[in-house]
Amino acid sequence: MKKIDELISAIRDKKDPTVMGIDTRYEYIPDSFAKRYQTHAEAVLEFNKKIIEACADVVPAVKIQAACYEMMGIDGMKCMSETIRAAREHGYIVMVDAKRGDIGATSEAYSAAFLADGAPFQADFLTVNPYFGIDGAAPFIKDCESTGRGLFMLVKTSNRSSGEIQDVRMEDGRPLYERVADLVSKWGETTVGDNGYSSVGAVVGATYPEQGARLREMMPHTFFLVPGYGAQGATAHDIAGCFDNEGSGAIVNASRSIMLAYRKAGTEDFAAAAREEAVRMRDSICAALNERR
Amino acid sequence: MKKIDELISAIRDKKDPTVMGIDTRYEYIPDSFAKRYQTHAEAVLEFNKKIIEACADVVPAVKIQAACYEMMGIDGMKCMSETIRAAREHGYIVMVDAKRGDIGATSEAYSAAFLADGAPFQADFLTVNPYFGIDGAAPFIKDCESTGRGLFMLVKTSNRSSGEIQDVRMEDGRPLYERVADLVSKWGETTVGDNGYSSVGAVVGATYPEQGARLREMMPHTFFLVPGYGAQGATAHDIAGCFDNEGSGAIVNASRSIMLAYRKAGTEDFAAAAREEAVRMRDSICAALNERR
Repeated sequence: MKKIDELISAIRDKKDPTVMGIDTRYEYIPDSFAKRYQTHAEAVLEFNKKIIEACADVVPAVKIQAACYEMMGIDGMKCMSETIRAAREHGYIVMVDAKRGDIGATSEAYSAAFLADGAPFQADFLTVNPYFGIDGAAPFIKDCESTGRGLFMLVKTSNRSSGEIQDVRMEDGRPLYERVADLVSKWGETTVGDNGYSSVGAVVGATYPEQGARLREMMPHTFFLVPGYGAQGATAHDIAGCFDNEGSGAIVNASRSIMLAYRKAGTEDFAAAAREEAVRMRDSICAALNERR
Repeated sequence: MKKIDELISAIRDKKDPTVMGIDTRYEYIPDSFAKRYQTHAEAVLEFNKKIIEACADVVPAVKIQAACYEMMGIDGMKCMSETIRAAREHGYIVMVDAKRGDIGATSEAYSAAFLADGAPFQADFLTVNPYFGIDGAAPFIKDCESTGRGLFMLVKTSNRSSGEIQDVRMEDGRPLYERVADLVSKWGETTVGDNGYSSVGAVVGATYPEQGARLREMMPHTFFLVPGYGAQGATAHDIAGCFDNEGSGAIVNASRSIMLAYRKAGTEDFAAAAREEAVRMRDSICAALNERR
């Protein structure tokens, strides 16, 4: 079974179209917990494991931000690898958010690192930057075809300045991200799964609701990974347009709002607070989707 | 002193505007050498050290392709870290070709991994993808301002399909990469060094000579990292337009043509063959630049 179909099934089973971002910084960890460990990487790993365990019955997928681990060096990369293992053991679909992409020969190496069979940092889904065009995307897509794993290609990102390049008006008056959307749609044609969605998905920021709704229309076979909910400011209503009429077609990420829920709740039990926030987020998004139908 | 000025000095001192790409794959290593080592990562590291040592009196800089190391997992990351150390010990300027880039908070983490003081994979220069706009570039630029290190932002890449997104015609009839060039120029304004070039450089593929010459005109304060020479097909004449009238302003990368020179030379002494090819490449590029003046 393709991972995109597994993801859609897991979302249905848990009735939760959200992915928990494990973008852990050492500063996020309560002091009382952090001080039990010798190294930052060790503390981060144990923090991750607790959150992963606590939310496993609620949340279908995790998204691991590679940068947070690379910044801790070799120990951090081990921590990423162990975090991936822990998430898989708890039954999550594992996305690695690494935003890789290069010329073909180099993308092949990145795919070997994250996506291909036997990859040392084995993801089920990997985020990829499309700036190189098809040469840079093809090695990843080829591995998706042979392994059933998947990608999320950047189309319209959630950050404030994403328009500086992505919204540039083209000769035909359309913004550049629509061109990228057309390409990503096309690149996904060879890997459409049982639910009508391709293994080649798209990153579409929750912070641009109108653009999200327009892209949803333009890309009926492309599953969306939707960042920007919570700490970046988007609400459940903002993301509703990224979903299809059946309430499928997208998964919404939240990282800081879940990992740091304990601070808002005034507790040091970060795992319980994360689970509560995950439930709250699920209910809030499902309510917004039901309202819309 | 800013690293961009150190780079320009090193190029002048060695009379060699080239950077050696250390994009080592295990398959590149002669069997007789590879079989001495227990692991792929160990063999790659020892191969790298030999080439780094052999070319140190000729070549001013190395460019280390992160993907080739990530694909070997934790051992590979250690190998990358040791390769960086070996290159620095031999006096090279060290570029890490990782093409990172994300929203601001995440770019900050990538910069901490590769560019900021104390980065575990400490580069003098890092390649960065501009797709996020200024939010994604700013954390890297901020670290350049405070540390004197530098960036090369992707503008026009060397691969065949780079035009699919980068050449899209904008409303004003210009190709998108010119918009990216304008942004990268502007992003570099705060870090112009003693030689008139900014710490924020640009990646401009040797395989598009006309575009390279046009970008050279458009970006008088932006230093170019020029990939695509050799194995990717560009010649010394193709890259001449990326240089300024004084023969400065660019550094040309070659990876496979140097690392695999031993095969063409019919020898197993890969280090000597790499040095000979590095000298040949230097002479060929300098001749093309002199011809043009």
